[in-house]
Amino acid sequence: MELEDVLRLLAELDDDERVAEILREQQPYDVAELIPDLPAEARLRIMRSLPPAFAAETLEHLTPELQYSILDHLGEDAATAVANELSSDAVADLALSVHPRQAERLLALLPPDYREVVRKLTTYPESSAGGRMTVDYISVRQTWTQDQVMQHIRKVAKDVETINYLYVVDQDGRLTGVTSLRDLILAQPGDRVQDFMSTRLIAVTATADQEEAARELANYDFLAVPVTDPAGRLVGIITWDDVMDVIEEEATEDIQRMGGTEPLGEPYMEVNLFTLYRKRVGWLLLLFLAQSFTGTILKHFEGFLSQVVALTFFIPLLIDTGGNSGAQASTTVIRAMAVGDVTPIDFLRVVWREARLGLILGLTMAAATLLRAFLLGSGVALGLTVAVTILAIVLVGSTVGAALPIIGRRLGFDPAVLSAPLITTIADTLGLLIYFWAARMILGL
Amino acid sequence: MELEDVLRLLAELDDDERVAEILREQQPYDVAELIPDLPAEARLRIMRSLPPAFAAETLEHLTPELQYSILDHLGEDAATAVANELSSDAVADLALSVHPRQAERLLALLPPDYREVVRKLTTYPESSAGGRMTVDYISVRQTWTQDQVMQHIRKVAKDVETINYLYVVDQDGRLTGVTSLRDLILAQPGDRVQDFMSTRLIAVTATADQEEAARELANYDFLAVPVTDPAGRLVGIITWDDVMDVIEEEATEDIQRMGGTEPLGEPYMEVNLFTLYRKRVGWLLLLFLAQSFTGTILKHFEGFLSQVVALTFFIPLLIDTGGNSGAQASTTVIRAMAVGDVTPIDFLRVVWREARLGLILGLTMAAATLLRAFLLGSGVALGLTVAVTILAIVLVGSTVGAALPIIGRRLGFDPAVLSAPLITTIADTLGLLIYFWAARMILGL
Repeated sequence: MELEDVLRLLAELDDDERVAEILREQQPYDVAELIPDLPAEARLRIMRSLPPAFAAETLEHLTPELQYSILDHLGEDAATAVANELSSDAVADLALSVHPRQAERLLALLPPDYREVVRKLTTYPESSAGGRMTVDYISVRQTWTQDQVMQHIRKVAKDVETINYLYVVDQDGRLTGVTSLRDLILAQPGDRVQDFMSTRLIAVTATADQEEAARELANYDFLAVPVTDPAGRLVGIITWDDVMDVIEEEATEDIQRMGGTEPLGEPYMEVNLFTLYRKRVGWLLLLFLAQSFTGTILKHFEGFLSQVVALTFFIPLLIDTGGNSGAQASTTVIRAMAVGDVTPIDFLRVVWREARLGLILGLTMAAATLLRAFLLGSGVALGLTVAVTILAIVLVGSTVGAALPIIGRRLGFDPAVLSAPLITTIADTLGLLIYFWAARMILGL
Repeated sequence: MELEDVLRLLAELDDDERVAEILREQQPYDVAELIPDLPAEARLRIMRSLPPAFAAETLEHLTPELQYSILDHLGEDAATAVANELSSDAVADLALSVHPRQAERLLALLPPDYREVVRKLTTYPESSAGGRMTVDYISVRQTWTQDQVMQHIRKVAKDVETINYLYVVDQDGRLTGVTSLRDLILAQPGDRVQDFMSTRLIAVTATADQEEAARELANYDFLAVPVTDPAGRLVGIITWDDVMDVIEEEATEDIQRMGGTEPLGEPYMEVNLFTLYRKRVGWLLLLFLAQSFTGTILKHFEGFLSQVVALTFFIPLLIDTGGNSGAQASTTVIRAMAVGDVTPIDFLRVVWREARLGLILGLTMAAATLLRAFLLGSGVALGLTVAVTILAIVLVGSTVGAALPIIGRRLGFDPAVLSAPLITTIADTLGLLIYFWAARMILGL
C-alpha cells in the first residue's frame, strides 16, 4: 500500500473507520513504515482508529521519539489503551529513551502493579539481558495437568509475548523447568507438567551482557531464553526477535567502530549533522595526533629525502599497503572474535598464522615492487629498498593487525576499537622507520 | 561437561549406553562442541549410542566435512536412521558441500520420494530462499476443523521443523492462508480453518535472495516465512534460526569485504593458510596497482619536492586522513544500506549531508593543522598549504566515500566491495593533486 493511497483515502473517504478497516488488512510493520511520512494530524487519526493491540504493535516499530509523540497527542483514553497493549520490554525501552519527566507521564498510563514491574525493568543497564527482557511470559507449576495448562494458555495467550515455552517455577518463583508447546500438545490431558517438562535449563542472569543472551539463543536455536536473578528466580525472558535485533545492532556497532566512527546508536538517516560530526571528529583528531610521529620521522630523515627525492615516490604506496594488510588482518580477527570463532586462547595460533601469512603476502608484494621498479627504470638499489620495506610492512601489518584486537579483548577493551585506523598508524610509523633503515643499508645514505 | 570428563567416561565405563545417557542430559549443541576434539573412534561410539533424532540434531551443528565423515563411518543402519532424522535443508546443504559422488551416497540413504524432494532442494542457488528453505512444514486445508488439525499435528509434530505456523493450501498446493498455533489453540474444536486463518500473506519466491527472506522475517517478526514457486505453490519455509545465521553470515561477509578481503565463507580458524593468502593477495595487488598513480604524481612533482623537502613531511598525514574520513563515510553508508536504513533513493540527501559534514570536519582538521604547523615552526605558507589540502581531502573523502557505495548498489555491485581500501586510493590520488596545486598557489612553486 503506497503512502499516496493512504493519504488519498483519508482525504476522500473522511471516514476513519473505513481507513482503519483497510489498514488492518496490512501488517503492523507496513503501517509503521507509512507513519513517519504522514503529517501529524493524519498519523493521529490513523492511530486512534486502529484497535489498541494493532496500534501498539505498529507503535513498537517506530522510533522512541515518534512513539512518545504519538502517545502524547492521542488523548488519555486512547493512550492508556495502547500503552497497556505494548509489550513490557517496549514500554521499558521507551521510558529509558525519553526525558525522565516524560517517562513518568508514560508510566502513569499503566496500572500501579504493572507500573512497578516496568519501572524495575528500566533499572537494568540497557545492553544487559535485564535491559532486553520482557515479563510477558507464561509460568506454570509442575503439578498442573496438561489440561489445566491448556486452559491457562487460552486465558493469557493474548497478553504474552510467546506461548512457545512454558516456564516451570516453584513456590518461590525459582525456575525449575521448561516445556515447549509442542511437548505440551503431544502430552495427554491427564499428564502432569513434571512428567514431560525438561530440566535441562539454559538461562542467563539479568546482569549478563545482551550479547551473551543472544549467543546462547543463537547457539541452541531457542525461541526464547529465560532470565534469572542471582537467587535463580525467573524475572523475564528474551525472545528471538529481540535477539535478532541485538545481533544486527552489535554488528553495526562493530562495523562503525572498525570504520573509525563512534557507534551512531540510531539509523543513519535519523542522526543529525552535529551528532555525526561529534562521532567522527574524535577519531580523526586522535589519528591526526598519532600521525605526528610520521611527520617527525620524515623530518628527521630530511637529509635522505633531499639526496634521493625518489624515496618520496613510494611513501603513499608503502603507507597504504601497510594499512591494507593491517585492515585485512584486524577486521577478520575482530569479526571472528565477535561470532565466537576466535577466543583469547587462540592468540599464539592466530599470531603465528598471520605472521606466516604476512611473510608470503609480503614476499608477493616485494616481487611486485621489484617488477614495477624494473619497469619504471627506478634502479636496483631503490627497488630493493622499497621491496624490503614492503615485505617488512606487510609482515608487521598482518601480525600487529591480528594481535592487537586479541590483546585488547584480553585487557577488557572492545577489540573493534583497536581497529584499522589505529593499526594503520602503527604500521605507518614502523614502516617508515624500516624504510629509512633500509635506505641507509642499501642506498648507503 | 568438559571434554576430559567425556573421554574419561568413555575409557572408564566402557559402557556406551551409560555414556549416551549422560550425554542426552546435555543439549545437542553442547555435545556437538565436544565432537571435533574427540578422536575418531570415540566420536563414532558416541554418535552410534545416541538416539537417531538427538544424533541428527547434534550432527547439524558440525561442519559439512565432519558430518559426512561421521555418516560415512557409522555403519549403514545407523547412518540411514540419522540421515532420515536430519531436517531437509540440512541434508540439502550437506549434499551441496561434498563431492557429487559422496552426495549420491548420502542421498541413497533416503527413501526414494524424500530423496527426490531433497534433490530438488539442491538445485536452488545456495544463497537463494530456495537454497535455505526446508520442506518440513505442516500444511492443512481450509475446510479442516480445529480438532482435525490438532490431531494432525500430534501425528506429524515429530517430523516437522516448526508447528508454530500451519500453512493453508488449496488442492493445487497453492498457498492461500496461514494460521498460527496460538490462533489454533484459541479457536473452538468445531471451527474450520477458514474461520480463523489469516489471508494477509507474506511470502518470498524460491529464487529470491536469502537476504530478502531474512529481511522480511526480521521486519515482521515471523518465526518462519513461506517460500513459493512462480505459480504460488508452497514449496518450503525458511525458519528464523536459519535467518539468524543468514544475518550473521551476511554481516561477516560485508565486514570482511570492507576490510579488503574476499569473504572467507567459513570460520576463520578453519581456513587454511593458502586460502587466506588467496583471499587477500588479490586486493593487495589491485590496490598496489591503483597506488601507482600516487607514485607517478609524486614523480611528476619531483621539482617541488626537491625545492621544499618539508612538503614530504605531511604526505602520510594527508594520505591517512583522507583514508580515515573516506572509511568513516563508506563503512557507515554501506552498513546503513545493508540494514535497509538507506536506499539509492536517498543518494542526493546522503551526499549533501556528507559534503556538509566533510566541510566542517575538514575545517576542524585544517585548524588542527595550522595549530600544529605553528607549534612546529613550519612557516605560515607551508602550514596553509597543508591546511587547505587537508580540508579538501576530508571533503572529498567523505563525499566520495558516501557516494560510491550507493552508486555501486545502483549499478548492481555489492557496495561493500567499493570499500575503504578503494576509496582510500581515490582520496589519496585526488589529495596529492590538490596538495601540489595548493603548493603551487601558496608557495609559488
